[in-house]
Amino acid sequence: MTTRISSISVLDEQECYQLLSTTTVGRVAFISHHGQQLLPLNFAMVDGVIYFRVNEEGVLSELADGLVDVAFEVDHHGTTTRDAWNVTVRGTTSRVHESAGLASTANLASLRPWAPGERALVVALTPELIDGRRVSSH
Amino acid sequence: MTTRISSISVLDEQECYQLLSTTTVGRVAFISHHGQQLLPLNFAMVDGVIYFRVNEEGVLSELADGLVDVAFEVDHHGTTTRDAWNVTVRGTTSRVHESAGLASTANLASLRPWAPGERALVVALTPELIDGRRVSSH
Repeated sequence: MTTRISSISVLDEQECYQLLSTTTVGRVAFISHHGQQLLPLNFAMVDGVIYFRVNEEGVLSELADGLVDVAFEVDHHGTTTRDAWNVTVRGTTSRVHESAGLASTANLASLRPWAPGERALVVALTPELIDGRRVSSH
Repeated sequence: MTTRISSISVLDEQECYQLLSTTTVGRVAFISHHGQQLLPLNFAMVDGVIYFRVNEEGVLSELADGLVDVAFEVDHHGTTTRDAWNVTVRGTTSRVHESAGLASTANLASLRPWAPGERALVVALTPELIDGRRVSSH
């Protein structure tokens, strides 16, 4: 369907983590009590663990209950080129008690919510699988 | 944590569909035989139905089997402002047989894959729920 010549390359784990560190917005997907969820949110990565702030009242609070199959994705696609990449992490989530001192790290302190409002819960997503790919056009 | 004043507004269905029409890249989330999936892909929207082209060999081909709880998301977040929006659709998927004539519509003909390679299957996602929100900073 297209006359462009494109190539796709699979990214190694180090490249995936490097690309995760270039952005602060991703999307999380998980099965809630209400079915499949898929929402954008801000995140911070500290020592290879991904952190979110979530509202105690919202659907994302279910992440703090400890879910075993949560996916998180970041991507980039240029508006003027066909160069694009994406990284998807899968892992388990758990609630972080801020008294653990994590909130004092520079990265986590910069963790801002996608939307305004109280975000009392901090959730950690510990990656078990990570994969990504880069698409280039010539 | 932030001194900016932000506001969040819930988008109505018409606004959600209008925003969906402003882009051609989104992310799909569903439970495959291998667990939670979350991947970006190109899409086209025709008459309120969302279409993807997927590879017969890849994990996304499971969408063509007819899944009942698939989420699809598009979003935008400016790099210099805190204005952002997101729309999430949930619905069911089914395989589209191109002989149905859909491939001849202008929108579907422009449907290009995120990554190169053969994309023999066309999948339709028929929305059952759609919701979105806009976040503005002042």
